[in-house]
Amino acid sequence: MAGRNHLFIPGPTNTPHEVLSAMHVPMEDHRSPDFPKLMKPVLEDLKKIFRTESGQAFVYPATGTAGWEIALTNTLSPGDKVLIYRFGQFSHLWINMAQRLGLDVEFHEVEWGKGIPLDALEARLKEDSSHEIKAVLATHNETATGVTSDIGGVRKAMDAANHPALLFVDGVSSIASIEFRMDDWGVDGAISGSQKGFMLPAGLAIVAFSQKALQATETAKFPRCFLDLKDMANANKDGYTPYTPSTPMIHGLRKALDMLLEEGMENIYARHHRLAEGTRRAIAAWGLKLCAQPGFESDTVSAVVVPEDKDARDVISTAYHKYNISLGAGLTEVAGKVFRIGHIGDMNDVSMLGAIAGVEMAMLDNGFDIKPGSGVAAAIEYYRSTAS
Amino acid sequence: MAGRNHLFIPGPTNTPHEVLSAMHVPMEDHRSPDFPKLMKPVLEDLKKIFRTESGQAFVYPATGTAGWEIALTNTLSPGDKVLIYRFGQFSHLWINMAQRLGLDVEFHEVEWGKGIPLDALEARLKEDSSHEIKAVLATHNETATGVTSDIGGVRKAMDAANHPALLFVDGVSSIASIEFRMDDWGVDGAISGSQKGFMLPAGLAIVAFSQKALQATETAKFPRCFLDLKDMANANKDGYTPYTPSTPMIHGLRKALDMLLEEGMENIYARHHRLAEGTRRAIAAWGLKLCAQPGFESDTVSAVVVPEDKDARDVISTAYHKYNISLGAGLTEVAGKVFRIGHIGDMNDVSMLGAIAGVEMAMLDNGFDIKPGSGVAAAIEYYRSTAS
Amino acid sequence: MAGRNHLFIPGPTNTPHEVLSAMHVPMEDHRSPDFPKLMKPVLEDLKKIFRTESGQAFVYPATGTAGWEIALTNTLSPGDKVLIYRFGQFSHLWINMAQRLGLDVEFHEVEWGKGIPLDALEARLKEDSSHEIKAVLATHNETATGVTSDIGGVRKAMDAANHPALLFVDGVSSIASIEFRMDDWGVDGAISGSQKGFMLPAGLAIVAFSQKALQATETAKFPRCFLDLKDMANANKDGYTPYTPSTPMIHGLRKALDMLLEEGMENIYARHHRLAEGTRRAIAAWGLKLCAQPGFESDTVSAVVVPEDKDARDVISTAYHKYNISLGAGLTEVAGKVFRIGHIGDMNDVSMLGAIAGVEMAMLDNGFDIKPGSGVAAAIEYYRSTAS
Amino acid sequence: MAGRNHLFIPGPTNTPHEVLSAMHVPMEDHRSPDFPKLMKPVLEDLKKIFRTESGQAFVYPATGTAGWEIALTNTLSPGDKVLIYRFGQFSHLWINMAQRLGLDVEFHEVEWGKGIPLDALEARLKEDSSHEIKAVLATHNETATGVTSDIGGVRKAMDAANHPALLFVDGVSSIASIEFRMDDWGVDGAISGSQKGFMLPAGLAIVAFSQKALQATETAKFPRCFLDLKDMANANKDGYTPYTPSTPMIHGLRKALDMLLEEGMENIYARHHRLAEGTRRAIAAWGLKLCAQPGFESDTVSAVVVPEDKDARDVISTAYHKYNISLGAGLTEVAGKVFRIGHIGDMNDVSMLGAIAGVEMAMLDNGFDIKPGSGVAAAIEYYRSTAS
Repeated sequence: MAGRNHLFIPGPTNTPHEVLSAMHVPMEDHRSPDFPKLMKPVLEDLKKIFRTESGQAFVYPATGTAGWEIALTNTLSPGDKVLIYRFGQFSHLWINMAQRLGLDVEFHEVEWGKGIPLDALEARLKEDSSHEIKAVLATHNETATGVTSDIGGVRKAMDAANHPALLFVDGVSSIASIEFRMDDWGVDGAISGSQKGFMLPAGLAIVAFSQKALQATETAKFPRCFLDLKDMANANKDGYTPYTPSTPMIHGLRKALDMLLEEGMENIYARHHRLAEGTRRAIAAWGLKLCAQPGFESDTVSAVVVPEDKDARDVISTAYHKYNISLGAGLTEVAGKVFRIGHIGDMNDVSMLGAIAGVEMAMLDNGFDIKPGSGVAAAIEYYRSTAS
Repeated sequence: MAGRNHLFIPGPTNTPHEVLSAMHVPMEDHRSPDFPKLMKPVLEDLKKIFRTESGQAFVYPATGTAGWEIALTNTLSPGDKVLIYRFGQFSHLWINMAQRLGLDVEFHEVEWGKGIPLDALEARLKEDSSHEIKAVLATHNETATGVTSDIGGVRKAMDAANHPALLFVDGVSSIASIEFRMDDWGVDGAISGSQKGFMLPAGLAIVAFSQKALQATETAKFPRCFLDLKDMANANKDGYTPYTPSTPMIHGLRKALDMLLEEGMENIYARHHRLAEGTRRAIAAWGLKLCAQPGFESDTVSAVVVPEDKDARDVISTAYHKYNISLGAGLTEVAGKVFRIGHIGDMNDVSMLGAIAGVEMAMLDNGFDIKPGSGVAAAIEYYRSTAS
Repeated sequence: MAGRNHLFIPGPTNTPHEVLSAMHVPMEDHRSPDFPKLMKPVLEDLKKIFRTESGQAFVYPATGTAGWEIALTNTLSPGDKVLIYRFGQFSHLWINMAQRLGLDVEFHEVEWGKGIPLDALEARLKEDSSHEIKAVLATHNETATGVTSDIGGVRKAMDAANHPALLFVDGVSSIASIEFRMDDWGVDGAISGSQKGFMLPAGLAIVAFSQKALQATETAKFPRCFLDLKDMANANKDGYTPYTPSTPMIHGLRKALDMLLEEGMENIYARHHRLAEGTRRAIAAWGLKLCAQPGFESDTVSAVVVPEDKDARDVISTAYHKYNISLGAGLTEVAGKVFRIGHIGDMNDVSMLGAIAGVEMAMLDNGFDIKPGSGVAAAIEYYRSTAS
Repeated sequence: MAGRNHLFIPGPTNTPHEVLSAMHVPMEDHRSPDFPKLMKPVLEDLKKIFRTESGQAFVYPATGTAGWEIALTNTLSPGDKVLIYRFGQFSHLWINMAQRLGLDVEFHEVEWGKGIPLDALEARLKEDSSHEIKAVLATHNETATGVTSDIGGVRKAMDAANHPALLFVDGVSSIASIEFRMDDWGVDGAISGSQKGFMLPAGLAIVAFSQKALQATETAKFPRCFLDLKDMANANKDGYTPYTPSTPMIHGLRKALDMLLEEGMENIYARHHRLAEGTRRAIAAWGLKLCAQPGFESDTVSAVVVPEDKDARDVISTAYHKYNISLGAGLTEVAGKVFRIGHIGDMNDVSMLGAIAGVEMAMLDNGFDIKPGSGVAAAIEYYRSTAS
């Protein structure tokens, strides 16, 4: 099939050619005196992405799922109570992990399309006067529904309840893309992966922990070894790692950090908002709705609800097989009901317009009642008027 | 600037990642017994692209411009008369080369937007009963104006005049993209370059010659050495080259040939036609005209004429600086009057829709009176209804 | 520093350029219908490397250390007794992991330089008539001392004792390089990583389990999630993975498997033996001894013992800083006492001769009493007489 | 065949991985306003390699052979007399080119193994009181015999004769590797190619001309177009090129220049001398002789004369097929009599020791009477004692 694949899933995102080239290197001795000269600045610069000065960043040869487990097993003990809201497949999976690990998981169902209910959270925390809840687990950007929760609001709710629980945030599809402020929001564990905003292939769990979380590693009773945080922190002190790192991925991360920091975090947030908003204008012009309810719209992924007589999987299949566009599918509860357009990572206006046009074709082919060009026209007007 | 550059110039075209990876190789001994195992099949397979069985293909470490010179200096002698029509910058440059080399160049002006006038050609050849004209030079696809001439028609005109001149064709922006049939059309010298339909970086002149042309090398009196065809043919006999080849480029060409031959020449022609026609529908929907007059439209590049009160350079500049799209400029006589959209090489529907949308934005930004989304809508409808 | 680094550590090994190029690809949708077409054959072909037909292979986005943990936590329960011998840093670390996870670890000290004592093992297993020992953990190739244990012999000892324990083998620095026969040797869990014999960057734990081990996952009581084997096996059924895979690494693994299977496992074993034996001849010619005692010499890494008045770290430092060769250091108990030469992965005779010559220079610079050229001469004679 | 090829031909040389990665880029618009930002500094920095401030450097999409032709056809006219000495295949080929182009070539035979005879040159120039000789063509480093001529001496001879001829130097296998001083030596045309000291693939003729040579382009009467220097100079003024450049090669050249200038020209000369001298010590230890006579030894390539009863081709064939080392063959007059070891480009001590060891094996296999390890031992002692 001639021409490139157009990748608009919410991760893995498109890796810039500069990053791929930076990864195309011979293997190196990760115990050489030169390796720390690469590794240490990477760990320092990661803090600028997480927006933390007091915390510490770590890179594991693993994935975001491992990141969830790193946070839980290194700071908590079996039977500890954690509080979490379930409003999509990824919050669901984190709940499932916490249960399987043997935590006492208190989870509340929230309608898919909404995010963390701040008032309910605050009330629940106030109720927990004995501080049985050891950690609040918050899914910042629920990739399945395209819903962003207000983590600053979560912190305010915890502070209003004067609750000492740890705050762990799944920022896999938000960090390095949309606003995330670890220090300002009092986040104790921030979890991301290489294949989203960091614009790399999958293969790295990229996490940051507050001093409070790092201290909790002293008392955490979960058995752990590969994902042990103290081993990692000890080795990192000298710029090394407890087991062989993927040096190509570290070089790629170095290049990605250079690109992110050159653009600047605030510019990155603004760019993702613009690209997302243009996509939303297109969706509205088609007469379709987001899965996300107003106020919860994600700037990294839009989950589009198809009319009841349509199956979103047909749109995805047509887009892929006929037009070589990759879209995200609806997962579990929303399977067939939504398709997802990723607007995360190394994207720009024209990339998004290609995606929107391609989606139009796939919808028209499946009998959707939309006007050809309508979505593109709406996005064009928005992008033009907001481009710098 | 985040996101990729969108490259829609008529060459260099987008190199597929498979080709770039094939070129990422250590250097090799080009005199080793293994080198011919790479080189010989490449030269054989090239013939399938040129559609010749009786001719012979050659690869020079040079460019398409060198290809023009190879044809002229290896088969003709100073003072020989050649016939050529001038209807764009590239036919102009070939004329200029022929004059500088010392040929007796008879050229006729044709309105830019049209191609070779077959009746006039036939008449002129019939007139030349003493066969002073030693070669007809034909620009198959005039990249500057987006005009394709009828080379089969040129052959018919030559046959009708029973004229023995050599037929040399500049197929730099046509071969490997749009219909080209060396044997069927009796082409004696076909000239292309690596950076167009072959989807490689610039750096190779890729040419093919008929047996008649090869015999003419025996009597040609131009001094020549680097571009000498007999040296090349002699070295090629054993699968070697007269001077150090770029082995990465040969590996890249190997991969590109694999991709082209897998798609199939007829499919490649059809794909380029579809992508071009969708682009033309968009241009019509904008109410704009091609530089090419009806019947001469190129399937590899569309030169769009802007209204008299506009400067096409502004569209190109806005597209590049604001939206990271690269378009082709109007050259010399049509500078400022046209911009060009390349639809050549490794392209597909969604690529083209991105380009069309981006051009819409750039035109709107420059005050063009077009309806947002109109071009995209027209292209969408065409692509949808013709996609396989 | 001009010229390439010469990498002779026992991992990461040198990645062939074909593998690096195979990894240089755009990101892809790992949930597309095409992904299983890549993944399933990779998993099938891995079995040919492990030499198993009845077992099943798995690829985790992690490292060999994770591989150890996968074997333990998916088949055993806290408090289960495991038997293991300690004779180097990597057997030490596996013991340490098992202890930290909460297993009842029975370990026996063996002199560093020797491997698993088969008679003692058999005696111990016979003694364990109540079958308290649930698993035998065997370090096939102790990378720290360059010692290879006889895993076939371990199986014979277990069979002689008629003992039902699971047999887990750390084959990180042996599998895909030296003889390993999962089915023949009745191995229940074979653990490797991408950065050794598989010639890839680090980042994949590559493991295989017998049906018996897979059944044990039903009753294993360790909490686990990221490294859960049932999740992986379930997703693999359809050719998918439970979390985002590194598609570049899977493409690289595909290419590495192609290269390994083209060479053939028996040829790979023989090549590693030849390269290792030539290195050993050089070491003997220098008048130096291996850390490995006779009968235990590894074909992937040679740990060279320096004279008592020398510090091996000086050799390594000189080699690296003055000659751009990377050698392996002695770890913990043998720090300063040995340096290690890796002869694993994508190596050939001339590579090894460069390493041997470089080591000679570094030793001479540090006042070693050796004859210049003596090691190289011995290796040359061996390589010449055994080359095919 | 496992393991890497060891490339020790005198070009193409080994391309550093940094350069290959720099070339792995998407295609770009070579007419964009950004292209000159890449191109202009490349042209400026090239002057530092040629060691010229008053001259001008140019990059053609061609090869070193084209470089010879560029010099001749842009500054001379048919029938002009040029003076040149023939002492190897490459000086022979330049003579051949000059003859074919129609120059009046006065060439003198010099024994292969020697270089330009300065006294004879001076005498001949003095004799030419009417200044019929328009150009002296000097092969700086005759790659076929491993002979370096004294270009500073050539200039002195010309000055002593007070002769106004242009001085053109073939520096294909010397520039960017061994001492070359365009301004100091009054060189009017310096010709190189990308695949030697510049450490790139073949595909660029890299040349520099003095103001005197540039003025000569005004009167030169050779027909020329593709290789026309005025076209190139005109386009270069604004940082563009007269025909499509290989942007990947320009990016690669950018990176190569960065590496060369970081090492520093004097350091590069010294490194090549050290690597060459170590190789010569090995050759002497084998009891063999260079083709180059004393005082003419090249620091980029050593041509080793085999005993009369041996065929050098057998050594090369054994080295290639049995040990995967690529050596240079003897060409034409010295075919079978010499093999050549390249020590040019991205090389270091251990690379050379691998080559020397491999050559020892190949010679021993062919019954050469040499002591195993003898060459390596001699080189080791030299490298050790001279390494910084």
